Amino acid sequence: MRVVIVGAGAIGAFYGAILKRAGAWVEVVLRSDVEVVRDQGFVIDSPLGNLSYRPDVVHDSVDDAPTSDRAADYVICCVKVLPGIDRAALVTPWLGPDTQIVLIENGINIEPAVADALTDHDLISCLAFIGVSRIGPGRIEHKAFGRLTMGAWPAGNSVGCQALGALFAAGGIDVKQTESVVRERWAKSLWNTPFNPLSVLADGADTVTMLDTPGSETLVRACMAEVMAVAAADGHALPADAIGRNIEGTRAMPAYRNSMALDYLANRPMEIAAILGNVVAIAQRLGVDVPRLRMLDTLLAMRDVQAACGR
Amino acid sequence: MRVVIVGAGAIGAFYGAILKRAGAWVEVVLRSDVEVVRDQGFVIDSPLGNLSYRPDVVHDSVDDAPTSDRAADYVICCVKVLPGIDRAALVTPWLGPDTQIVLIENGINIEPAVADALTDHDLISCLAFIGVSRIGPGRIEHKAFGRLTMGAWPAGNSVGCQALGALFAAGGIDVKQTESVVRERWAKSLWNTPFNPLSVLADGADTVTMLDTPGSETLVRACMAEVMAVAAADGHALPADAIGRNIEGTRAMPAYRNSMALDYLANRPMEIAAILGNVVAIAQRLGVDVPRLRMLDTLLAMRDVQAACGR
Repeated sequence: MRVVIVGAGAIGAFYGAILKRAGAWVEVVLRSDVEVVRDQGFVIDSPLGNLSYRPDVVHDSVDDAPTSDRAADYVICCVKVLPGIDRAALVTPWLGPDTQIVLIENGINIEPAVADALTDHDLISCLAFIGVSRIGPGRIEHKAFGRLTMGAWPAGNSVGCQALGALFAAGGIDVKQTESVVRERWAKSLWNTPFNPLSVLADGADTVTMLDTPGSETLVRACMAEVMAVAAADGHALPADAIGRNIEGTRAMPAYRNSMALDYLANRPMEIAAILGNVVAIAQRLGVDVPRLRMLDTLLAMRDVQAACGR
Repeated sequence: MRVVIVGAGAIGAFYGAILKRAGAWVEVVLRSDVEVVRDQGFVIDSPLGNLSYRPDVVHDSVDDAPTSDRAADYVICCVKVLPGIDRAALVTPWLGPDTQIVLIENGINIEPAVADALTDHDLISCLAFIGVSRIGPGRIEHKAFGRLTMGAWPAGNSVGCQALGALFAAGGIDVKQTESVVRERWAKSLWNTPFNPLSVLADGADTVTMLDTPGSETLVRACMAEVMAVAAADGHALPADAIGRNIEGTRAMPAYRNSMALDYLANRPMEIAAILGNVVAIAQRLGVDVPRLRMLDTLLAMRDVQAACGR
């Protein structure tokens, strides 16, 4: 099995390691750390054991794109979903006629930007439940979890999805196949859409601050209820106890700073549209009132404008 | 006329200058810059002319409190309204039996903390419409405006209020006497309560960012509508066109950063309770739903917790 991972940051490098362990041919396309990874491979500390590996090929440019007879079975896109980043263009050089496109990315409704541009290819959409971060050039720390939920997009499943899932499972992680990856995205959004932006607006607050400040759990729950309403209007009603279970689950974890909070504190671009803006846009299209989510979105937009104009 | 100004920051120093110009005896109680002000007085640049002056006495401690035969006619409190600052205790040393207490301070329902502790004294409540800031030790820049709105608290007016107003007017500023200072506070709150916290959460955004970011004017108007609803429930219905006039007035000004935004950017304590928290508390007491104001209050509280715990 031949795989190209486009955007081998912490997430991409980790899932590349899993596929490598399962025996796949793994090429990576990097934006930074190319020389280090070519020299030393990825060094990955993990509770799963030593996941360090050398990718079979390390690309630093589309000029390296393979000829079609060497085309990948899967091109796995692990690039952050950000305005101005054309993910379809990033995966295109690596596509052969039968290559399947795989997204391991956060957010709601993030598939069309790729699928609409590349209609000839099957699209597999995946959600990663993982704690992993880059701690230096070519160095990744895998802290916990790793489960992938995956399905064909927009719905159903496929032989290709099952085969890729089997490979991930052989590499040592839990895989959940789904017939409704959009529903799974809504279920994850129930947590991400409130917690991520709230954390940024609270200056990088962690989960304990976000639940134990007076009024804050009420606010989180109210935001979650708005996400539930949009999901239901989109045809994916979540279970009635979903909010309570998310709150309990969060309380059961140690204080935790989410990915958007970490991006914010490190002054990196944030996946605001993918995690929040797209939910607000769907709400507007479907006529669902989401005053709190809209307020979060507007506040983050104001921050952006203020940062850009620097008045 | 003998006046003691407690807390002669930019606002206190400015209004002391006005009273000095009108011929009053002006003592000031300072927390910082005592030596500089004793040596050189206040240096105040102002479009009103040269307002620089030497206070008649510069106090740096309550040990300097006058004997009762020298008691002030007015003790004017210009201290910021912050949790943990006991303004009643700060003015008490300067009170004789007939001294009237004057507050020149921002916010809603900020009088009871002083009035309830000092029931034997008349209380005059004032709102300052002014652009003034401290630019160095003993140095104040008066940029624009200066109007005071003043009345007896909780309602009505008084000979003492009229006399003090006449003195301010003689010193060169506009004075508006009111029979309902609480209504005037609500009218000012209509602007302050949304704009100040929104600006902080948008990382110090100015008025142009707060009106011209997509969605932001809608958000400001929605927050203002919540303030209107609380004011009305509190017995002070504001005119139906108040929101529109506030927005237009703000658009007519150049980009402007409000006092809470400046405090935030300078890492100084913010008057969150006075400007926002008290509005939310009154809403709760009167059963008015204010989801956006509550959300602003909770977000600011989360920031505070995060800053304090530093996890």
